[in-house]
Amino acid sequence: MELFSYFRSTAAYRVRIALNLKKIDYRLTSVNLLKNEQKSDEYHAINPMGLIPALRLDDGTVLTQSTAILEWLEETFTDNPLLPADPLQRARIRAITNSIACDIHPLNNLRVLRYLTGELGLSEDTKQTWYNHWIQLGFDALEKQMVPGGYAAGDSISMADVYLVPQVFNAFRFDMAMDAYPKIMAVYRRCNEHAAFIKAHPDNQEDKPVA
Amino acid sequence: MELFSYFRSTAAYRVRIALNLKKIDYRLTSVNLLKNEQKSDEYHAINPMGLIPALRLDDGTVLTQSTAILEWLEETFTDNPLLPADPLQRARIRAITNSIACDIHPLNNLRVLRYLTGELGLSEDTKQTWYNHWIQLGFDALEKQMVPGGYAAGDSISMADVYLVPQVFNAFRFDMAMDAYPKIMAVYRRCNEHAAFIKAHPDNQEDKPVA
Repeated sequence: MELFSYFRSTAAYRVRIALNLKKIDYRLTSVNLLKNEQKSDEYHAINPMGLIPALRLDDGTVLTQSTAILEWLEETFTDNPLLPADPLQRARIRAITNSIACDIHPLNNLRVLRYLTGELGLSEDTKQTWYNHWIQLGFDALEKQMVPGGYAAGDSISMADVYLVPQVFNAFRFDMAMDAYPKIMAVYRRCNEHAAFIKAHPDNQEDKPVA
Repeated sequence: MELFSYFRSTAAYRVRIALNLKKIDYRLTSVNLLKNEQKSDEYHAINPMGLIPALRLDDGTVLTQSTAILEWLEETFTDNPLLPADPLQRARIRAITNSIACDIHPLNNLRVLRYLTGELGLSEDTKQTWYNHWIQLGFDALEKQMVPGGYAAGDSISMADVYLVPQVFNAFRFDMAMDAYPKIMAVYRRCNEHAAFIKAHPDNQEDKPVA
């Protein structure tokens, strides 16, 4: 299968981690968000939302939206599960993943930050205030939910880590102080020792520009 | 079970529709967002994110995040399914639900609109420009995906309708012109003839203030 990705897209990063954890072969096609390649006619033919990621299967079927892709991977590739069998445990993990995917990330992705400083004409300082406000609100609540000494949702890696790690990476990129989140940071460091997370890391992507 | 709801909360509206479609008994506890009741210590003890909805089960277990709640309902109450059995069809529906839950709704909910005019000091006109921008971007893409003559994802009601109808209601509330979206509007009208959608409608909630 083929993943349409960009090295530092938070949502594409999630899917790379899951593919690696499930040991699924895939090739990457880079869609450069800084060059607006996601708005090209060519990419819109693949994903009419013009968003990253999209996953094209070998028969040409295209899946879009990282959460939809991740749930499909979980349902289809049942080895190395990222959600447990118990429905209440699944709900607890999905509350974490969706708080990141719906309450934190959408307010801080590239298109929104660009709109604030572009169309709305706000300053870089105001953009940073906006960024910090929403990340703090979300991370404050997540920190309370982390189990000390484990991964984001307990003793083993789960879908919660797949969402948490890219969001923390994103926070560092925007110079967010993470001192207030020792439990989140412990999970982040622990995950980043794992080969699947290392391989998925933005710094290790072929489409990362040479500095 | 007990749903913590607010009559015009988009995310609570989704859960009300699904509970009604699945014919599950529940009682409503109103959390008044305009009075900031979601920020009270009492409500934070129930949902540390301070967001609506939350679902409290009879044994006291609390589920949060509308998508996590809806997936749990789907897994636990298998009568009247809102997702089909086929994984690719499920992925297609979840791409619609997540484009609404992640790409459209988070940018336009009450807390974000308040932040724009409050902390950032933007005008009501600018807020409206922001609102229209993100709704248009999302609805333009959704309109292309609607199947004429059916529901949001085909011939029968699915999870896609559970997300679409509250988002269209929200758009009307913010005076969005919907003329450009005839297929979305046809789905909206068709769903609103259904008893489960009528019962879930904000106008039919006990906690709607008397005008």
